[in-house]
Amino acid sequence: MAKARVLTPKSESFPDWYQDVIAKAELAENGPARGTMVIRPYGWAIWERMQAEVDRRIKDAGAQNAYFPLFIPESYLHKEAEHVEGFSPELAVVTHGGGKELEEPLVVRPTSETVINAYFSKWLQSYRDLPLLINQWANVVRWELRPRLFLRTTEFLWQEGHTCHASEADARDYALRILSEVYEQFMVDVLAIPVLTGAKTENERFAGADQTWTCEAMMGDGKALQMGTSHLLGQNFAKVFDTQFLTEAGEREYAWQTSWGVSTRMVGGLIMVHGDDAGLRLPPALAPVQVVVVVVRDEGGAGEKAEALAKQLKAAEIRTELDARDTPFGRRAVEWELKGVPVRIELGPRDIASGNAIVVRRDRAEKETTPLDGLPVRLPEVLDEIQQSLMQQAKDRQEHRTADVATVGEAVGAARTGFARMPWDGAGELEDKLNQEGVSVRCLRRTDGSVPLSSDEDDLVAVVARAY
Amino acid sequence: MAKARVLTPKSESFPDWYQDVIAKAELAENGPARGTMVIRPYGWAIWERMQAEVDRRIKDAGAQNAYFPLFIPESYLHKEAEHVEGFSPELAVVTHGGGKELEEPLVVRPTSETVINAYFSKWLQSYRDLPLLINQWANVVRWELRPRLFLRTTEFLWQEGHTCHASEADARDYALRILSEVYEQFMVDVLAIPVLTGAKTENERFAGADQTWTCEAMMGDGKALQMGTSHLLGQNFAKVFDTQFLTEAGEREYAWQTSWGVSTRMVGGLIMVHGDDAGLRLPPALAPVQVVVVVVRDEGGAGEKAEALAKQLKAAEIRTELDARDTPFGRRAVEWELKGVPVRIELGPRDIASGNAIVVRRDRAEKETTPLDGLPVRLPEVLDEIQQSLMQQAKDRQEHRTADVATVGEAVGAARTGFARMPWDGAGELEDKLNQEGVSVRCLRRTDGSVPLSSDEDDLVAVVARAY
Repeated sequence: MAKARVLTPKSESFPDWYQDVIAKAELAENGPARGTMVIRPYGWAIWERMQAEVDRRIKDAGAQNAYFPLFIPESYLHKEAEHVEGFSPELAVVTHGGGKELEEPLVVRPTSETVINAYFSKWLQSYRDLPLLINQWANVVRWELRPRLFLRTTEFLWQEGHTCHASEADARDYALRILSEVYEQFMVDVLAIPVLTGAKTENERFAGADQTWTCEAMMGDGKALQMGTSHLLGQNFAKVFDTQFLTEAGEREYAWQTSWGVSTRMVGGLIMVHGDDAGLRLPPALAPVQVVVVVVRDEGGAGEKAEALAKQLKAAEIRTELDARDTPFGRRAVEWELKGVPVRIELGPRDIASGNAIVVRRDRAEKETTPLDGLPVRLPEVLDEIQQSLMQQAKDRQEHRTADVATVGEAVGAARTGFARMPWDGAGELEDKLNQEGVSVRCLRRTDGSVPLSSDEDDLVAVVARAY
Repeated sequence: MAKARVLTPKSESFPDWYQDVIAKAELAENGPARGTMVIRPYGWAIWERMQAEVDRRIKDAGAQNAYFPLFIPESYLHKEAEHVEGFSPELAVVTHGGGKELEEPLVVRPTSETVINAYFSKWLQSYRDLPLLINQWANVVRWELRPRLFLRTTEFLWQEGHTCHASEADARDYALRILSEVYEQFMVDVLAIPVLTGAKTENERFAGADQTWTCEAMMGDGKALQMGTSHLLGQNFAKVFDTQFLTEAGEREYAWQTSWGVSTRMVGGLIMVHGDDAGLRLPPALAPVQVVVVVVRDEGGAGEKAEALAKQLKAAEIRTELDARDTPFGRRAVEWELKGVPVRIELGPRDIASGNAIVVRRDRAEKETTPLDGLPVRLPEVLDEIQQSLMQQAKDRQEHRTADVATVGEAVGAARTGFARMPWDGAGELEDKLNQEGVSVRCLRRTDGSVPLSSDEDDLVAVVARAY
């Protein structure tokens, strides 16, 4: 019997496949207002795990969480010229509140540099208060004309870090520390996504920043997704919001600042890096459910044994779910595959009789018969292997689909299926030509692959790709 | 030397004292747009602890987290007549997005019954999908004319649970389960706040609900604060949003629903129940910092010893902070008192020499000299004692300030300093008279103190108070 097709195959249409996965794995759906999104419980569980892992790393980097208002007076945004120019077309504006027209319209925050700087100016007194390291988890709104679930939504959820430092060097160091120790490490270690870190070109910088650094990842279709950014704001916002501090020498100086963020967009990246034609494939370090114990048929003590096993695995701190539903086994197996649970343990009466369980790995189509008693020892190894194998598969694709090129024509050719690496002349003309061809410079890296301190460094390599 | 006054004394002005605590303990301040609030890191740390504890209990009650959009089409709110009547005066309305006027204005969610029901209608098929138990952590906006930090802010943060059930009895049971197992238990066990649970009168019900149950607590000035509510929505929203399911008998029926929420308002309650003239007093089960180890003077190895002790306590899973700053000790002691840290351990050269530490408890003005070696064993006991003692103090106040009364005049008199308990006739006239005198029925309870299934039960007792 041919297996029923659950999703549009990736090879047929990657965008349709992406939408199908989100719908069938019950991750999210469109909200009633254009571009908004409803995140369903399973999608939320994934985001919640991302939040926990990122939050821990942010706290380890010394930042504290706080919360700033959703509504920002329109005049705040107008203070920084580049900032307002960048965000104006994307704003949602509240004009009425409490049944009356407001004297000054309120903008729903597209990002919070302006409102946070208004408070930094009050809180920051002297060099002793530095560095001032603040983060918030919040929803932001940027009007989206071509919305796409998780990737581009009018409202999205993110964390935004905002910091003040005593010198440009300190600010730069911190922006780069967040990029590598928080974002890159999280994406590599937890999401099993190899990311290219580098500097954005001046064109692609955050509106109001002196430098923007980014984590770029290759999706299953060879396109690039910007997974997170970290900005050196210099003194741009400090000057317009008068964020000053008294130096050790007793002089007043504007604070040097950074801001940085990752968002629900990462869920989209996770889907597009690891997913296959059967659905999601979640790296065990992230997966809300690492192991599902499925009762094939509740006979011969299979149900009881499965329950005991699930309890045992939970006690060993493996995120485990028991599936003892009485719906057909085949349908349930398809569901767990769609949801990308790394390991499925199947238990039926025959397995109980033989003292074995069937262990099905989601990273490759492989079933392994394992003695029941050995599972608590074997499973952590299997989860580790899956984490490694998903990373390796993503790395392999990225390597195979990246070409060193010398001309715009070659770059555009390579970007049809993946990334192009080409020498960067910094002149800007190259970038224009690439953009005209529908590809863009995703980031600039040093020839040894390390992150440049600025996009103006000599001898940089541009990573060129089509982008989400 | 007389101790400098840090805060307005409670006895002089409770509202000024409240504002002073929030400012001096660096919990929050007013946002730039009217009624909005900036939650500073220490205030956020308290809220984050509340979230973690409430979230765990919600998950134990079987609900799953999800996320619904901030923006709701205005037409959705108009579908339920009572609901729109209740919320219309408080709405913030987005009329412009992406530089254009919107065809249909979007309301910034004041609560999410309407938008969530639109999705329940899609997700709910049959009785097998029931109960459908959803929760979200989100910001909501209700235009506030007399804003007050944490207590009444235009934007506030909360969780809102929304559920569907197969029968009215199931829905009622679940609403009451959330009230007692999640809200009351959290408030009692973690916040050390004795709450009175009961039913709201028809007047005081949530707009669109058949019944509302509440947790009410007595603040330090004898007024009542509504700390959390749980609603039986009946089929009101299900009918207007067509949220139906197929019963086991194969018939279509409207879902029976509940909704329930607690918010950042609880932070205000925490301040007003336990705070004293030196600042906050946090119950150890909640406190983000349970123990602060303060180096009085870094001589004779005090700094080193303090660092080792802090590390040891952290390893024992006590939330510990080390204060080795070189600012004057007295100022730091005042700061930790303001922040309400339950236990302060003072270490100076003399203490090191004698092998002792000074243990200062925040629940009562008492210093205890304790052998350093004994601290890891002694501290968990001390933290337990403080938790009990804060609860006992709050209980004692509530008991002393609650009077059994028979007339409106007596109730109003008792409500000057606390709560009045009076027989409830259910007629409504009594309530009007009370309201005219500036007091209100906070909740209705059975004579044995248990929670009535409905405000229509016979022989109920009304708890009457002035309210926040």
